[in-house]
Order: sequence, then C-alpha cells, then structure tokens
Amino acid sequence: MKAINLAEKLSHITTHWDPHIVADYNNNDVMVVKFTGEFPFHDHPDTDDFFLVLEGEITIDLTTEDGTGESHTIRAGEMFVVPKGIRHRPRATTEAKVLLIEPKGTPNTGDAATASAKPRL
Amino acid sequence: MKAINLAEKLSHITTHWDPHIVADYNNNDVMVVKFTGEFPFHDHPDTDDFFLVLEGEITIDLTTEDGTGESHTIRAGEMFVVPKGIRHRPRATTEAKVLLIEPKGTPNTGDAATASAKPRL
Repeated sequence: MKAINLAEKLSHITTHWDPHIVADYNNNDVMVVKFTGEFPFHDHPDTDDFFLVLEGEITIDLTTEDGTGESHTIRAGEMFVVPKGIRHRPRATTEAKVLLIEPKGTPNTGDAATASAKPRL
Repeated sequence: MKAINLAEKLSHITTHWDPHIVADYNNNDVMVVKFTGEFPFHDHPDTDDFFLVLEGEITIDLTTEDGTGESHTIRAGEMFVVPKGIRHRPRATTEAKVLLIEPKGTPNTGDAATASAKPRL
C-alpha cells in the first residue's frame, strides 16, 4: 500500500492510447494513459467506461441508442462515464493525460484481438 | 451523459466527511467529499476503498493485518486504495478535497447506523 503519484506514473509513458495499470480497485484496473489523435469507435457491452482528465482536454464522440451522435469535451479536472453498450470514440487534438477505470479483462478497443496489453507501471 | 466538473461539484459542499455522489460507474458511486480533522477508524469487509486527492493533502492511518500501524500521506494528484478489510482512518490537518469510489450501499463509516446519506449533486 502506498500513495500513487499519477503525474510520476505518466512520466514513464512514451506511447499513446496505451493504458498502463497503476492500481487495483476491487476487480478493476485503474490506469493512466496519454491520448493524441483519434481512437477507433468501439463499445463495451458489459461495462461502463470511466474517464477522468488529469491534464489537457479530450473529446468523446458518442453514437446514442437512437442513432443520434453527440460530442462531449472533457477538460482537466472533469470526468465522464460512457454507459455500457454506447459506441464511443475518444480523441484529443493535443496530448491529454487521462485516468481510466475498467474491470479487469476489458479490451480497451472493445475487441480482445486489437486491445492494448495494459502493462503495469 | 455530460462532463462532470469536480471543482464545481465540490463548490456546493459546505460540510465535511459527507460524500456527495457525482456519477455512477457500473454499480459504484463516484463521490466528492471534503475532509478536515479525523474520521473514525473503520473498515469495509467487502470492498476496497478508492481515494484520489484533488486538492490539499490527507493522511490515511492503517492497522495492517499483523497489527502494525502505518500512515500514508496522499497529496493532490495522488491516489490510494485501502484493500478490503484493512482498518483505516482518513484525516486532514487542513481542508482537502477528495474523489471517492465505493460500491453502492457501502457505508462510509463501515457501519450503516452511522453512515452518511450520500446525497447526489
């Protein structure tokens, strides 16, 4: 048990869209990640998706159940939860640093074949 | 679905040790809370306890399984997870602002009889 400094953990990450585990909370991975550019649209049929922006600004594009699209900007100090099953695409014009929480085993792309390995920092 | 500004949510809270729900993540409450002084020692037998310090600094005193005590200081931008079953006491010398995550129904004191109501902001 120890305090986990998120900025220090992020300083070791040189890649984008590549979440690294920094802690465990019940059966969830708590991760930090750097975003730049666009991630593919995807969904997680079995879990909500938790985003907390630590630095910078991200946009999450959503395709809601009625097929309507909407976009949400999330700035440093703001969080957002994508409900399970909602198709979404995170993107960032310039590098943003984000805390993510997902149940262990959740593929970040929604597809195990293309998912990041989620190494531990 | 919308971005949740944690500082804005905290600006409505005038009490201490009184978590307010700002979002739902799977079956968890995501909460913001202000700490000042000492909370009672307690434990949660069925869940880990997630703390992320947004502003200020807190200390968590722990009684580990072998009966040894230890204390951890968690500063703004740092997080800490108290594993389930570990007795702990959060405290803060001056007001600190904290993000908490707990499964819905978890009493913040470890005891439903003394727990906060966890209103929604």
